[in-house]
Amino acid sequence: MPTRLMGLIAMLLCCSALLAQQDAKKSRLHARNVIFLIGDGMGEQEIALARNYQVGAAGRLTMDTLPITGVATTYSLQENDPAKPDYVTDSAAGATAWTTGHKTSNGRISTAAGTNAVLKTILEIAQEHGYRTGNITTAELTDATPAALGAHENDRRCEGPADMARCPQFQTSAGGPGSIAEQLVDHKIDVLLGGGRQRFEQTITNASLQGKTVVAKAEQLGYRIVSNAEQLKEAEPGTPVLGLFSTGNMSLEWAGDPAAPYPGSGPQRCRVGQRKPEEPALAEMVNTALRLLARPGEHGFFLQVEGAQIDKQAHAAHPCEQIGETVAFDAAIKVAIAFAARTPGTLVIVTADHGHSTQIIPQPTPADHPEGLISALTTNEGAPMYVLYGTNEACCKADHIMSHTGVPVRVTAIGPGAAALAGVHDMTDVFHVMARALGAE
Amino acid sequence: MPTRLMGLIAMLLCCSALLAQQDAKKSRLHARNVIFLIGDGMGEQEIALARNYQVGAAGRLTMDTLPITGVATTYSLQENDPAKPDYVTDSAAGATAWTTGHKTSNGRISTAAGTNAVLKTILEIAQEHGYRTGNITTAELTDATPAALGAHENDRRCEGPADMARCPQFQTSAGGPGSIAEQLVDHKIDVLLGGGRQRFEQTITNASLQGKTVVAKAEQLGYRIVSNAEQLKEAEPGTPVLGLFSTGNMSLEWAGDPAAPYPGSGPQRCRVGQRKPEEPALAEMVNTALRLLARPGEHGFFLQVEGAQIDKQAHAAHPCEQIGETVAFDAAIKVAIAFAARTPGTLVIVTADHGHSTQIIPQPTPADHPEGLISALTTNEGAPMYVLYGTNEACCKADHIMSHTGVPVRVTAIGPGAAALAGVHDMTDVFHVMARALGAE
Repeated sequence: MPTRLMGLIAMLLCCSALLAQQDAKKSRLHARNVIFLIGDGMGEQEIALARNYQVGAAGRLTMDTLPITGVATTYSLQENDPAKPDYVTDSAAGATAWTTGHKTSNGRISTAAGTNAVLKTILEIAQEHGYRTGNITTAELTDATPAALGAHENDRRCEGPADMARCPQFQTSAGGPGSIAEQLVDHKIDVLLGGGRQRFEQTITNASLQGKTVVAKAEQLGYRIVSNAEQLKEAEPGTPVLGLFSTGNMSLEWAGDPAAPYPGSGPQRCRVGQRKPEEPALAEMVNTALRLLARPGEHGFFLQVEGAQIDKQAHAAHPCEQIGETVAFDAAIKVAIAFAARTPGTLVIVTADHGHSTQIIPQPTPADHPEGLISALTTNEGAPMYVLYGTNEACCKADHIMSHTGVPVRVTAIGPGAAALAGVHDMTDVFHVMARALGAE
Repeated sequence: MPTRLMGLIAMLLCCSALLAQQDAKKSRLHARNVIFLIGDGMGEQEIALARNYQVGAAGRLTMDTLPITGVATTYSLQENDPAKPDYVTDSAAGATAWTTGHKTSNGRISTAAGTNAVLKTILEIAQEHGYRTGNITTAELTDATPAALGAHENDRRCEGPADMARCPQFQTSAGGPGSIAEQLVDHKIDVLLGGGRQRFEQTITNASLQGKTVVAKAEQLGYRIVSNAEQLKEAEPGTPVLGLFSTGNMSLEWAGDPAAPYPGSGPQRCRVGQRKPEEPALAEMVNTALRLLARPGEHGFFLQVEGAQIDKQAHAAHPCEQIGETVAFDAAIKVAIAFAARTPGTLVIVTADHGHSTQIIPQPTPADHPEGLISALTTNEGAPMYVLYGTNEACCKADHIMSHTGVPVRVTAIGPGAAALAGVHDMTDVFHVMARALGAE
């Protein structure tokens, strides 16, 4: 072949490679599907506790393997002076940040601090753009994190029709959208899976639905109601599904001894396999949601998945239960990553709403030890790990719980637009990354 | 112009752009200069404390602005069973990880756990490859972090010739290299700046230098000795410099009330400008080091910069002092970033050796408050921030200090090879990123 021709062919190949690269760059911001996974209360300390116990200090959880890592600040706003920060967020304000792109004050569900202005959520935006939607949690579906995606209230405690005293403006009798439970089904979210049946069995008080439960309303709206793992397996695409697997929060994966004042509980090994068999694991819920949401040849989906009880077990200073929930959340991430690997154009983001009270400390001694609650765990690699919960007194009463902390959290991602999450961000930036991925910005 | 010719030209442009891009990719791993900045004890909580106080929750420190962010695990090894981890590192094992690429047990200075095997350091590698070197700290130059770069000992406490009881194999009388102070000057590190004059004024015990101090030895080796900020300014390139600005640790930037049991100290504002005027700020030391190390038209340099007293002030539960040291460290990072911006081919890495005891908590109340040491700070943006140190009893004695924690730390970078630090790593990976940047791997 003449050299000139070979040169031309090489140039053509070069050129097409470069153009393809530029095309890829352009489309890199748009995603067919967005899966957003949130470990409630899962700061780096909480991740490290689970990593060390389960896969060892040199091991890697699935959440450790995503290629893009960033840091997200989590602070909220003061209700009485929204120009000023509250350095420690709760889960309601935390979720409102990524859900709406706006900061708010603690306790609010996708409404503005100081006013009750309704803030549009990423789920509402996804629906407007033709995406199917899903919302999964191991807590009650009306708990703050899933609530902020598909409801608006001035107070997170307005979970069911009978819980509306604190949200006068949002009551149906005042022309409002009603409780979080009512709003979630009114949003016609395609897949709603979690606990909290107690909220959905409360009786609706507005005229047209007087005497009906939220479950009955959901059925009227076309939902298929499922209440255990078996029924969940039988759910079919095309019909929205409301899965209520527990009266309150779903049952826990692991059990162990709570942390205790010095010398602390343990050394202990956690007891695995504690979840009630009729309740699906978080990974099973994600698996089903992906099966229901990802029909070929149609629009994609937006799915939020919450590992909710990492937070709740840290509040309670229950290290084994906390690790079990973190490991279960990590298994759910694995399902999402595997889906993304076989489904080009899927953006997966993993983050947390705030850090928690957990600290991994050196071996406590008679001379040097903290006054908080301690437990010694023997990890799977056979080493002792000492965990401290010290953000509340080691005493007193059942609701004397450990507190959140103001530490920024990891945000990690893979897929179209993920690279924007490298660096230090505010959690509201995550909203914009998702909005861009959905073609809304 | 004929279409065919235009097409050819376009293709040529395309092709050259693509080739240039590939060239850039190849050279991206090699750096002319490497600046490694380490905030001792600076986990995300410690960064957040300084960010909130100084620039506000929505503000950004310089260290928050680097484009690549990753997470680094920090655990060390058990001395008696090096196959097993110690989940909470000290600064000696922490520094040995990035300095040598090997894990070791707590207390060791670039020697192997269980044996006393000497582990080659990144500074030694840089020197072998013709790079000039610098080592700067606000602690004593013989403290663990600067020591691990230019010395090998089985115990970090072997700082000066009179401190060698714990390191029999490394004593000069046993044919060893002597104390950390002796080894640092024997390494002929071009720029050595920090505190710890007391170690260098100790008398050497081996035959040839009997009766001489380490300072005298350094002079004999060609070092210019400087002892205050004025003299530092007069240092000239071409002569190695040993700057000893304080007997022990250098003086602190800020002051304030220590944290105290509930209801805690404060609300307080920190008192800035506390550093002794004769001592240079960390940023000034970095500025001088860059002036001395970066001569044009010759080999580049490796420089380590430690903000050492973030850790020491967290140990002491002194929030204002801790924030002041973090802000001073951030100012040093700013100098490094500015140098990198005007000096292509400079890799800057910022990280920490371990997290610390600091926690930002919600407002403590009579019913709900921790038993540790608390302080309320009024931040520059006028909001209250509550900090807790709870990893040791709020009592007792002067050395009853707060402990490190086992949390992974942020690693952030800019420059050639920086992208390799996205994701979750072990701190030993940072060694390899630097070794590759220096052309040694």
